[in-house]
Amino acid sequence: MLSKPTVERLVVYNRILKKLDREGQKWITSKKIADVLSRTSAQVRRDLSFLGKKGKTGVGYKIKDLIKELDKVLGLNTEWGLVLIGAGNLGRALFYYPGFRREGFEFRVVIDSDPKKIGKKWSGVTIKSIEKLKKSIDKKDVCIALLAVPAGAAQKVTEDLVDAGIKEILNFAPVTLNVPEDVNVRYVDLALELENISCNIVNKSK
Amino acid sequence: MLSKPTVERLVVYNRILKKLDREGQKWITSKKIADVLSRTSAQVRRDLSFLGKKGKTGVGYKIKDLIKELDKVLGLNTEWGLVLIGAGNLGRALFYYPGFRREGFEFRVVIDSDPKKIGKKWSGVTIKSIEKLKKSIDKKDVCIALLAVPAGAAQKVTEDLVDAGIKEILNFAPVTLNVPEDVNVRYVDLALELENISCNIVNKSK
Repeated sequence: MLSKPTVERLVVYNRILKKLDREGQKWITSKKIADVLSRTSAQVRRDLSFLGKKGKTGVGYKIKDLIKELDKVLGLNTEWGLVLIGAGNLGRALFYYPGFRREGFEFRVVIDSDPKKIGKKWSGVTIKSIEKLKKSIDKKDVCIALLAVPAGAAQKVTEDLVDAGIKEILNFAPVTLNVPEDVNVRYVDLALELENISCNIVNKSK
Repeated sequence: MLSKPTVERLVVYNRILKKLDREGQKWITSKKIADVLSRTSAQVRRDLSFLGKKGKTGVGYKIKDLIKELDKVLGLNTEWGLVLIGAGNLGRALFYYPGFRREGFEFRVVIDSDPKKIGKKWSGVTIKSIEKLKKSIDKKDVCIALLAVPAGAAQKVTEDLVDAGIKEILNFAPVTLNVPEDVNVRYVDLALELENISCNIVNKSK
């Protein structure tokens, strides 16, 4: 079982390697990866050893081999079905975000509470009411939920998701969710990113 | 000058403290903060010492005091003007995302290249063409740009932003930007979050 910080680093390595591969590069050293990420070479080598890959002295690792192994470990060599909860502005942006499809994530079910939205189609996916959640996700083989509802609605919808058997939730609502121990929630807080920037400005002006 | 990882931790501490403050809690120990974040108490104390605050034995820190100092350090005791580049699905979602306003971030300028969008208003902010960028951001006191354009358009727009004097960019386009050394770019890659989740599922099923 990989630790959460290790997984986070592997995800980022994979991103960098795919970029270099697209640019036509064939080999990379642990030092080069470490430099890009402000890490130490030793940590990069330790992380990559989980993949059963060792670098060759002088040239390092073959980029395509690393990507193949990373995709396997990260579960990117398969298709993942997603359910989107909330067909508002953010939900729409997520649904049409091109980065998800590229990595094998596909929205198969969209749920909203607004009767005016229910029945509408987004790229062939019909927006449904929460009552249809369980049946829809079972039928479409969905195991990850993206939560893009207002903060006030998030906990209730989360309980519906848990009841429907969802174990993995990516939450965009600015609120902490209470879930059973076997359910994993990741939080995306867009304002956190901006706060890193404002702090940077304050720091620079000192 | 605070290091980037320290800033990232301070941002998260502030979030947790604000939540506890809203829940009516008055005091917190470094151990409690450390537990929530899977860090060590020693690191939390070291981080908070940058604020010039020391915990009292037994009771820890006064939450309201910490928030006040963190807001100051993170630049949240002031208003920040934002320019949004790209009035598509993602741009619209960002513009109406309630979390930004709550922390003092305000969209004052919106730019798009689509003639059908230019001239339209979002909550009183008129969408303008890129030619109006420099004049608009100077007039409205804007120093942070949010980039929500397709990958193919991102580098060109970034150059326009740099020419207009922007030094801080939050990039949602799935592409690495080339910028001068004095310009800071933070990347938001929504697919990274999903890859952490898929890896988690693969790991669990082993």
